[in-house]
Amino acid sequence: MSAGSGQEPLRVAVLGARGRMGRQACAAVDAAPDLELVAEIGRGDRLDALAEAGAQVAVDLTVPAAVMGNVEWCLSHGVHVVTGTTGWTADRLDTVRQWCTQAPALGVLVAPNFGIGAVLVMRFAQQAARFFESVEVVELHHPDKLDAPSGTAVRTAQLIAAARAEAGLDPVPDATVEALEGARGADVDGVRVHAVRLRGLLAHQEVLLGGPGETLTLRDDTYDRASFMPGVLVGVRKVADHPGLTVGLENYLDLDGAPRRAGD
Amino acid sequence: MSAGSGQEPLRVAVLGARGRMGRQACAAVDAAPDLELVAEIGRGDRLDALAEAGAQVAVDLTVPAAVMGNVEWCLSHGVHVVTGTTGWTADRLDTVRQWCTQAPALGVLVAPNFGIGAVLVMRFAQQAARFFESVEVVELHHPDKLDAPSGTAVRTAQLIAAARAEAGLDPVPDATVEALEGARGADVDGVRVHAVRLRGLLAHQEVLLGGPGETLTLRDDTYDRASFMPGVLVGVRKVADHPGLTVGLENYLDLDGAPRRAGD
Amino acid sequence: MSAGSGQEPLRVAVLGARGRMGRQACAAVDAAPDLELVAEIGRGDRLDALAEAGAQVAVDLTVPAAVMGNVEWCLSHGVHVVTGTTGWTADRLDTVRQWCTQAPALGVLVAPNFGIGAVLVMRFAQQAARFFESVEVVELHHPDKLDAPSGTAVRTAQLIAAARAEAGLDPVPDATVEALEGARGADVDGVRVHAVRLRGLLAHQEVLLGGPGETLTLRDDTYDRASFMPGVLVGVRKVADHPGLTVGLENYLDLDGAPRRAGD
Amino acid sequence: MSAGSGQEPLRVAVLGARGRMGRQACAAVDAAPDLELVAEIGRGDRLDALAEAGAQVAVDLTVPAAVMGNVEWCLSHGVHVVTGTTGWTADRLDTVRQWCTQAPALGVLVAPNFGIGAVLVMRFAQQAARFFESVEVVELHHPDKLDAPSGTAVRTAQLIAAARAEAGLDPVPDATVEALEGARGADVDGVRVHAVRLRGLLAHQEVLLGGPGETLTLRDDTYDRASFMPGVLVGVRKVADHPGLTVGLENYLDLDGAPRRAGD
Repeated sequence: MSAGSGQEPLRVAVLGARGRMGRQACAAVDAAPDLELVAEIGRGDRLDALAEAGAQVAVDLTVPAAVMGNVEWCLSHGVHVVTGTTGWTADRLDTVRQWCTQAPALGVLVAPNFGIGAVLVMRFAQQAARFFESVEVVELHHPDKLDAPSGTAVRTAQLIAAARAEAGLDPVPDATVEALEGARGADVDGVRVHAVRLRGLLAHQEVLLGGPGETLTLRDDTYDRASFMPGVLVGVRKVADHPGLTVGLENYLDLDGAPRRAGD
Repeated sequence: MSAGSGQEPLRVAVLGARGRMGRQACAAVDAAPDLELVAEIGRGDRLDALAEAGAQVAVDLTVPAAVMGNVEWCLSHGVHVVTGTTGWTADRLDTVRQWCTQAPALGVLVAPNFGIGAVLVMRFAQQAARFFESVEVVELHHPDKLDAPSGTAVRTAQLIAAARAEAGLDPVPDATVEALEGARGADVDGVRVHAVRLRGLLAHQEVLLGGPGETLTLRDDTYDRASFMPGVLVGVRKVADHPGLTVGLENYLDLDGAPRRAGD
Repeated sequence: MSAGSGQEPLRVAVLGARGRMGRQACAAVDAAPDLELVAEIGRGDRLDALAEAGAQVAVDLTVPAAVMGNVEWCLSHGVHVVTGTTGWTADRLDTVRQWCTQAPALGVLVAPNFGIGAVLVMRFAQQAARFFESVEVVELHHPDKLDAPSGTAVRTAQLIAAARAEAGLDPVPDATVEALEGARGADVDGVRVHAVRLRGLLAHQEVLLGGPGETLTLRDDTYDRASFMPGVLVGVRKVADHPGLTVGLENYLDLDGAPRRAGD
Repeated sequence: MSAGSGQEPLRVAVLGARGRMGRQACAAVDAAPDLELVAEIGRGDRLDALAEAGAQVAVDLTVPAAVMGNVEWCLSHGVHVVTGTTGWTADRLDTVRQWCTQAPALGVLVAPNFGIGAVLVMRFAQQAARFFESVEVVELHHPDKLDAPSGTAVRTAQLIAAARAEAGLDPVPDATVEALEGARGADVDGVRVHAVRLRGLLAHQEVLLGGPGETLTLRDDTYDRASFMPGVLVGVRKVADHPGLTVGLENYLDLDGAPRRAGD
């Protein structure tokens, strides 16, 4: 049974409540009839307020310097954690896994991306990869972005490359012998990734897969940070069903499971 | 173990071998190192040639008037069947299911669409549907097509509608009060479907899903009928692993199974 | 010489200054170094304030019930007008033309759409229409929109139809004999127009043109009403160069003129 | 008056008639009621056949080593030339210009690209460039292509860069400080160009322009070399109206001229 599906609303605290994402998360939790916003914790506020409010799930939207302390506190006080804070290294994830063994009933969701569309593009690309000879990734963002390509695009390319390797596919075909520097994009594990920067855009990603006579395009367009809130709420509602550490919202989306077969 | 993965090539016959699709199928089977084209049966040819050639799998690309007889003959002679012939009704499928009970080791694949991209768009749309408030289908074809929307688009909309119903979603939002006739497309189980007809195109389909601040687009572009051949070969190689009747190539694509979780 | 290109900033008043568009226009004028915002007129305010402030150009972003009075007042007080207010009929335009004969030095711009991208799509579609056998229009908007298709899409289709007629083209080919009601979209002067409604979108339009083996796609995506401001500023800066009534921002964009030939 | 609009069909010869493009050109000329195919010249054939057949226009689809000789022969025998042969340098164009002064009534069209959609994308991009803060070019081709980016994409970027310079625009904004090598594409005169290589594609180009809250996308999709034939026929029909050397089919398309104003 999912947390929050019972009659009592699930009690939720937001950490980093005064940041841009935090404020939106507070509003989204507040608006959901099955959730109750019991604490809004900002920088400098005491975490005890969270315990006093009886929070069952904490949404951490803080900063790398704060998130580890927050997760440790939550796990030692019986509170599930959903976090979109950045800065996760393999070491940090290992540390959290350790902590989880001390609190086996609690769940921690670390989500690099709460956009459900973005997560689905990544997952579908991974599933489709082995059926197509060619694949490239194009990400498009506003021109104020500092890094290229986006972390999501790099991760998508890595997942595609792994799926191709597992399926025993040959390298993608490319007869280019004469190229302007940079024309063919960045090479991420053998998958070409192109980064477009354009005023007017926010965050967009397109995966193009091609075989003889056919192409498949998977595209996510994010126009507004509000788009992350449905994903945050999925995390909040399902974290209690996933004890231990989970990395990636896609693991909460039941994508492998029950859907009836198309041909039934 | 998949048929065809052993050392001996799998012995394949093509029925309807002189039609447009049939000729392409003969060429594709011929070119595959793990398959052997042992019989090319055209209109008026005797099916016995198929038995004499020791065919293990028959690819039927004939016409509605011929396919039932062909399937019956194959099942009574120990030959698996992969067919892309049209005209399948619930009654016909029931009849084949009956026949299959008499030959429980044999498989029959009825595939309305052998395009892997088209099949994936359908499947991904079905999986994604429950996460988005809005969804519409746009199909685009050459202007010589007789029906609108395409059968694939109708089926896609039906699968989406069923997935939405299963997830308990509200009807898609639409405030339109003043419309030119036809502007909002056809209504297929509550999902709007638009059919574009344009010289230069062959067969294309786009599923658009939208939630607050985000859209997800799934698109298949078919430029050439050659694009169906990879799907035909998947069918040929896997039919022996799927005894009984299967409707839809998607059921051979292992989409629910082994792929490692993105977060592992 | 364009108004505003001299040393003195051009003096601009905004009518409807407290509406959503009006507030944005005030901010945009204020931010432009070559323009000076000298009056912000809201409902109930006296137009005399406009004269007292020495406005040279008035931007009218009011309502159909107010705009005619505003234009008349401006033309009789020596003030150019740029308006994006709706509700223009042939009769209303004729009336303004009459008034203009009394003030031959003044310009009035009536712009159904200030989005430069939207205007360019319309214009390019009109120019390209005669080279392609097929053409269709797809517009996509948020689901709270009341009418379908959009006024811009209808106008685009009309311009395309007129360009085809002028070039003597045959009707667009369409072999459809069996269709679900609405599948083929609305018929606007022989051009099919499809209206998609999707949460997450704001205002988007795509014109698809096709000939043997080739398609041309012209697409405008509007994510934010801020996108109208560059067009408003073009209108303000150029209205003094276009005495009399002009309908459509495209006529201020110098699209036919000086651009050097590609082959030079 | 355009050549070919009279009652007598225009007499056309094809040079390079046995190549892939040449065969298509012969068929296209043959199928046009206002044109008559009077000579098909292949490698080794005598050009005199062309004169004997009374050709008025020669379509040269040969190779760089042959084209100069062919053009010279045609100009000295009173025959207009339309050529899509590659290998044109500034020197070669100058030589042809010289020859033309000796035959002032004759026209020569050198067309790097006969695809009308491709030519229109280039032209519209050039016209739209000055209205948008950002612009990038994405070209997509089959993976057997040897160069990246395509010549058309490079030329498009150059035309855009020139239009921006002429309009006094600032460099396109780009805050990237941390990038994987190649992620941001090739730099062509300050315009980023990305080259995608994908099985299933033929030749595609997309120009993305963006300003605050809005993007404009111009896209050409070429699925088949048949798409070049309408452009070849435009060249054949109009070459007599353009004495002297013309580079670029766009100069025959009357894009600057008569089209009625949208607001009239």
